[in-house]
Amino acid sequence: MRIHWIVWGMIIGLLGPQGTYSQKAANQLDIHARLKYFDDLEDVIGSVLAGDVDCSILPIENSLEGSIGITLDALKEHDITITGEIIVPIRHCLLSKGHMEDVKIILSHPQGLAQCRRFIRTHFKNARTQTTGSTSHAAKLTSEFPEMAAIASRESALHYGLDILADDIQDHKENYTRFVVLGKQMPEPTGHDKTSIIIHLGQDRPGVLYDLLGEFASRNINLTKIESRPSKLGLGDYLFYIDMEGHQSDTRLKDALKGIENLADQIKVIGSYPMGIRKIA
Amino acid sequence: MRIHWIVWGMIIGLLGPQGTYSQKAANQLDIHARLKYFDDLEDVIGSVLAGDVDCSILPIENSLEGSIGITLDALKEHDITITGEIIVPIRHCLLSKGHMEDVKIILSHPQGLAQCRRFIRTHFKNARTQTTGSTSHAAKLTSEFPEMAAIASRESALHYGLDILADDIQDHKENYTRFVVLGKQMPEPTGHDKTSIIIHLGQDRPGVLYDLLGEFASRNINLTKIESRPSKLGLGDYLFYIDMEGHQSDTRLKDALKGIENLADQIKVIGSYPMGIRKIA
Repeated sequence: MRIHWIVWGMIIGLLGPQGTYSQKAANQLDIHARLKYFDDLEDVIGSVLAGDVDCSILPIENSLEGSIGITLDALKEHDITITGEIIVPIRHCLLSKGHMEDVKIILSHPQGLAQCRRFIRTHFKNARTQTTGSTSHAAKLTSEFPEMAAIASRESALHYGLDILADDIQDHKENYTRFVVLGKQMPEPTGHDKTSIIIHLGQDRPGVLYDLLGEFASRNINLTKIESRPSKLGLGDYLFYIDMEGHQSDTRLKDALKGIENLADQIKVIGSYPMGIRKIA
Repeated sequence: MRIHWIVWGMIIGLLGPQGTYSQKAANQLDIHARLKYFDDLEDVIGSVLAGDVDCSILPIENSLEGSIGITLDALKEHDITITGEIIVPIRHCLLSKGHMEDVKIILSHPQGLAQCRRFIRTHFKNARTQTTGSTSHAAKLTSEFPEMAAIASRESALHYGLDILADDIQDHKENYTRFVVLGKQMPEPTGHDKTSIIIHLGQDRPGVLYDLLGEFASRNINLTKIESRPSKLGLGDYLFYIDMEGHQSDTRLKDALKGIENLADQIKVIGSYPMGIRKIA
């Protein structure tokens, strides 16, 4: 897969250390970019804001656990644009220096722990779980102590010299993570694009969301996602994150966005970008 | 607040040990119920399914971090009904036996850690975070080691003999958690009720969600929440959790639910129950 504006030698910020699923996403770009690893997602976001990297790769949604709050919040709070998306199949492994019966502490990113909840519960009822900034960071830490095990990618086992005690341990087989490429500039239309917006409804009356969706339905615009997220202004007050097919420079989309102006008191277009393709694992 | 069918001496299952926000929710019921504590949310859900308790209290949504996946999944997977809701203000404290400068490990429920992300990052950039089954369990563990601190309720400090190193440390002031009371039987209408449903859209065409919301809008039914959640059937395939005002025995609601039958291939009514009242902290 290629995102046409990412060119040879560009610097991409992403979650590290080596072996993260973010790195897998970067590898799908089929271009020799320079990868710059950061300790946590906040630092990845900070790197693109500060201009330390040309763009950054961040997870936005997992097919089992849903959205990644930090990424959604960053898109709301900062002047930052989605410039591409990449879909990565997730196959978690249990990695350790020790044996199954030695394991007393299981480390992973909170998403990794959540996606393997049933596995942990079945096989390690009494183990402690500990969160780390990334799955590969868990693998790195695990390499020091045989009583630890990490939930991480197969590649992490190679990077940190760990054994794969169990493979494909997520609670459901259909496990994908959608990553977004964040940058500062909107890519040109490719004819196969998606547009993402954040809105806050301006009125609290029955049917306002219905009226808003009508602006898209009446123009035959396909919404690929609609998600509510607390606005942080109070319980029961939500922002809506909406993804749709098309580019914001399309007339139909422009008209729809114009049409919702009276219904929403905040509309933020957070990107128009080429749709990601889902590869088989 | 009273939920009319919860009577003296009933057994309520909830997350323990003592000092959880779930206990605060139970205390709001203003009745002498017998509280039975469990180690994690899965066990709380199991207790009501097995009939070990008369009902159980579970967090379903936080105003900062959004929905609690385990609770939403349980409502989808099991024959279980929402019979009431309780809204609890959340004020996290940092609790420890040691001083600020001693703290090397911060423990809490994943929601507690997420709600105080900025606080941790600002004051404890190099501390390790560790998840526990509940905030009060974090407080209990913390009482053994001065290098540990827990993010938990003020009440937990009393229960486990800890000092309050910092108060009100969540990243946003407006922090509430909505709890649901799960049982087996639907409560009678009170005139001030909410109904919750889960649907899976039966068609993948532009406007189908719009048409579905139209069945509610045309009957002037106020939707208090709409949330998409991965169906676990594949990326991009969602369930919708919708809350609305009214009781499922109301004619208007019955008609709307009948109206959506052709648009959704799955509709599950997960409860009609008296609305919770939001108390000030």
